[in-house]
Order: sequence, then C-alpha cells, then structure tokens
Amino acid sequence: MAPKVLLMGELYWAGKDAEQLLGGIADVVSMESSSREELFKDFASGGRYSDVVAIYHEHLSDKITGHPDTDFMNALPSSCKWFAHKGAGYDSVDVHTAKSRGIGVSNTPGAVDEATATTAVFLLIATMRRFSQCEAVLRAGGFVAKGVEESARDLSGKTVGILGMGGIGLQMANYIRPFGCNLVYHNRKPNALAPPDVKYIADLYDMLGQVDVLMVSIPLSEKTRGFIGEKEIRAMKKGSIIVNTARGPVIDEEAMIKALQDGHLGSVGLDVFVKEPEVDQRLRDMPHVTLLPHVGTENQDARRKMEVTALTNIKEYLTNGVGPNLVPECK
Amino acid sequence: MAPKVLLMGELYWAGKDAEQLLGGIADVVSMESSSREELFKDFASGGRYSDVVAIYHEHLSDKITGHPDTDFMNALPSSCKWFAHKGAGYDSVDVHTAKSRGIGVSNTPGAVDEATATTAVFLLIATMRRFSQCEAVLRAGGFVAKGVEESARDLSGKTVGILGMGGIGLQMANYIRPFGCNLVYHNRKPNALAPPDVKYIADLYDMLGQVDVLMVSIPLSEKTRGFIGEKEIRAMKKGSIIVNTARGPVIDEEAMIKALQDGHLGSVGLDVFVKEPEVDQRLRDMPHVTLLPHVGTENQDARRKMEVTALTNIKEYLTNGVGPNLVPECK
Repeated sequence: MAPKVLLMGELYWAGKDAEQLLGGIADVVSMESSSREELFKDFASGGRYSDVVAIYHEHLSDKITGHPDTDFMNALPSSCKWFAHKGAGYDSVDVHTAKSRGIGVSNTPGAVDEATATTAVFLLIATMRRFSQCEAVLRAGGFVAKGVEESARDLSGKTVGILGMGGIGLQMANYIRPFGCNLVYHNRKPNALAPPDVKYIADLYDMLGQVDVLMVSIPLSEKTRGFIGEKEIRAMKKGSIIVNTARGPVIDEEAMIKALQDGHLGSVGLDVFVKEPEVDQRLRDMPHVTLLPHVGTENQDARRKMEVTALTNIKEYLTNGVGPNLVPECK
Repeated sequence: MAPKVLLMGELYWAGKDAEQLLGGIADVVSMESSSREELFKDFASGGRYSDVVAIYHEHLSDKITGHPDTDFMNALPSSCKWFAHKGAGYDSVDVHTAKSRGIGVSNTPGAVDEATATTAVFLLIATMRRFSQCEAVLRAGGFVAKGVEESARDLSGKTVGILGMGGIGLQMANYIRPFGCNLVYHNRKPNALAPPDVKYIADLYDMLGQVDVLMVSIPLSEKTRGFIGEKEIRAMKKGSIIVNTARGPVIDEEAMIKALQDGHLGSVGLDVFVKEPEVDQRLRDMPHVTLLPHVGTENQDARRKMEVTALTNIKEYLTNGVGPNLVPECK
C-alpha cells in the first residue's frame, strides 16, 4: 500500500499538480477531523490517520485544529516523518519537538520571494510618495492631496537598507536596483549572492544611521522578537521610513507608533502587525502610512507556487528520503 | 541692462538654483498681474512686462491668467523669444502660434521620467495585486480582503505592453524588467534606446491582443485624443489591466468604464482623468481599481528637477540662443 499523506487544508490552486506529483506514489487523504481533540484521536493508535507518513500543512487548518505546537507534534504517530508547511515563515510550527521525534519540517521559501518582495517594493513606493493618502483624498471626493509635494520624495539617490538578506531580501535588492537607490544591507553575515553594488554593513546601528528607508525582511524567532525597538528606531534619521513585510512582532509596534506620532519616523509601510487580525487604531487613523492586511503572498500564482513547493517536499521525501526545503533547525 | 525674465508662478524648490543659474545674466521678476486682462496690458507697449525676453511658466499661474493659448501667445511682446514651460506635457501651450511668432517653447521632459515611471510601476503592482482593495478593507476595520487571492497575480511571466516609448516609457521598461515580465512596446517607430529584450510590435492591435497589462505613456494631442477607445479595449484579452499615467483624454473613459463594469477589463490604475479635478463617480465606487489624483510628479525632488530644467532652458537661451528642451513643434 502506498504511504498515506494527510492534507491539512485544501489545495486551492495545485489540485492538478498534486495528481502529477503524488499520483501513484502516495495515498492522499484530506483531513476530516473537526476539532483538535478529534485530530489527536485520529493520530492515535487505531485512528484514521495513525499510519500517516507525511503531512501537508496549510495555516488555515489551524482555525480548526490549532497551531502545530509541542502538543501537536507529540500527538503525531511514529509513522509520520515529514511535515510540509505551506509558507515561508514557520514560527507557528514547533520545529524542535518535530526534530526530536525524527520528523523533518519543510517550508516553501523561494515560492513567495517574488510576491513578498513585490509587496515590499509597493510599500516602498507608496510610502516615499505618500500614495495611500493621495488615493484616500480622491476616494473621498477630493483631488488635492495637501502636503504631499512637501513630504514625497523620488527614490533615486536615497539610501535603502535591507535588514535580512535571504531569498526575499535578495529579490527586493534585485527589484529596487534600477530605481537608482543607494542599496545597503545588514545580515548576520554577508550573503555571497548579493550583487556587488549592494553594500554589506556589519554593524546594525551603522546601517540604521544611514538609511532613508529600512526594509525589514528577517524571520520571526525568539531572538528577533522586538529586534527593531525604541533604540533602533531612534538610531534612524528623522523622517525616515520603515517597511515591514516579515512579521509584525520583529518590530516593537508601540515604539514605532510613538515615533510616527512625534514625527521621528516619516512613514511606515506595513503588511504585518503584532496582533493580527487586529490593527492598532492609531495606525489605522494615520493617513500618511500604507497598511495592508498581510497579503504579501496573496495571489493565485504565489499560492500555487507555495502549494506545489510543499507537495514537492513530500514527493522528494517519499522518493529520496529528504525534501529540498528542510528547515535549518531540523538539519 | 540684463534681459528681463518673467516668472509666471512661484519657484517652490529651486529658489537657490535660480540665483545660481540666472543671477547676473538676467533681471528676474515675478508676475504681479492679478488677471488675464491685466497681464495682457502688462505685456503691451508701455506695460511692466513689455520688454520681457523669456518666460518661466508654471501651470498653477493659469488659475490667474488662463492657459497660454493663441490669444496669450499673440499678446506677448515682440521682445519675448523663449517660453519655458515647467512640465513634460505641454498640451495646454499653443506651440504653433508661439512658433509663428518666433518664440521657442521648451518643456522639462527628463525631469519627470523617474517620478512618472515610478508612479506607473506603483499602479502596475497595485492593480495586479489588488492592493487598494486590501488597504480599504483594513482601513475600514477588517483584515480579510475577499476575492483578492483569486484575482491577484504575480508579475513574472505576464506580458506588459508599453504604449509610447519616450523617456518615461524607457524608464518604465527599466524599472519593470527585473520583475520577469515579458515586456513589449508599441510606438510610431522603434526606439533605439529600448533594451533588446523589450520587443517592438509595429501593429497596435497585435500588441493589444498580447498584453496582460497596457501601460499608457503617450502625450495628449488632437491625434491621440481617444487613442484607446472601445475598439482598442475590446482588442485586449478579457481580464487585462490598463495603467494610465499620461493624460486622461488619451483613453475613452466611457468605453473604459463600460469594460470595467462588464468585466472585460480586470482593473485599471489611473493617475489621470478626462475631467480633472472631477473623477467619475462610477470609478470612485470601484474597489478593485487604483486611483491617484494626478500626482505622478508630485514630490519635491521631481518638482525641483522640473523647475531647474525650465530655468536651465532660459539660461541656455540667454547664453547660447537655444534651450536644450525646445519642443519638436518649434524646431
């Protein structure tokens, strides 16, 4: 009998790809558990998923069965050896417990580089040019966006700093280069893939003091929670801009809002927030910022690429014993 | 005595540049006329501007003295030999009457290439990803933008067609290339400056049938009024997008709205409208389009570049007899 693969969450765009990738080599079943309690029973001996070998995980399934945390990982049957998370960020997945149980966790890094970096470029332009404010004026029946000429800037000649030079950061650099910005980046170590004209700055505060715009692209972990706080924001120049397409909690939102209120920050472009789906009312009331409801990967092409990448990890695990996107913590 | 230069409209950003460019070589005076009638008297024999040699023209002055049309050009004293318009588009200037009177008209083409092309890229991303709709949902207190995943697309692999390959079109191509689009363009004739991978399509309808997004970048003239009409829109694929950062009237707005309403057009990104500052209520009510109040050049850097370019044309006229940006109609 073919190994059982459990789909936790629907395949929205990659139904046909799934047939092509797993057809014949796996017995693919959709999760029918209607609660976390029921799912854990289904994983237990004699349960309907007690012989599952690999899991496809889409975050919407968490609404029914909760995050794949410690209890979840411990509830998995010993047959389960691969957990393919659909998404680049996997902060909701307890990778350490997975590893201790011999389960490989994969994410879908490259699949969302384009979509996320494109969102970051959008937020960069929107905030530099104050376009959200402009559109709000028009939608309200006006045509004159007061104060925009004075605060809006061209991109050329401005210093844009990318914090975190992984796949998404590299793609951002790639997209931003033709705009004539002075591009710099900070990372734990230099990335050999970064173009030579994108300058590495080893000291975070050195970079923060130089940039007109800070593009945040670091994963969320206990080490990066509040990474950009009061001290870091105040190390930036007055009037500078922060764009965040990573995760809300990597920035101290309270310190950021204070700096927006007192004018130290000129604007922010955010796709992510600390308490999603809640957005701080003070941010929502600011006309000169641009705010998106975590839609950095929200398009059918990116979603299909994510689904296909997650499925490919399962296929590769089943056929070669390891998926290409095993997360570092599981190595 | 130094030749008199009349500033019609304020220098907002280039006050210091003006001193550097014209100090010592011109007698620069600001327009004090409070109506068109008064201005025409001031231009007439014995009037305070009867000896003006060159004019700096900023469109906001039209609110006081009207467009520089036929009557305006005929009212200018015979001493006036240069009319430096601040802006890329000069459809409001009667260049033919100017030429017949021996007056050179200059515009400021390169100065706004960056700002306008950046606005076009913003509208391209905004419409492809349905980001205006996303932000509207968030601003209204929500966090789930329904239907966005289904309608939003990544840029890579899509065909983007640039209509009009002048300085702004070239800059658009330059900015869009890293996004992995299949770039094509239509122009009266091929532009040798276009990158080799940006393919020229000689037949307009051939291009319209291929593109997922049409970027409109042609100047407004009597020949281009309604250039993209019902027939042209219907030659595009169902679900395609139009971005317009040129002038409203180059598109038949009524045909465009109809195509948006019946779903033939997936979205539009507009910085310009037929009856500015009025915006058709049907457009304003559409959540899936992105609308800006003609702010393509609205930022201090672009404005300063425009002011400096217009002033440089006057300086070059005064010192060398011709400005670098003499419009083709005056050659």
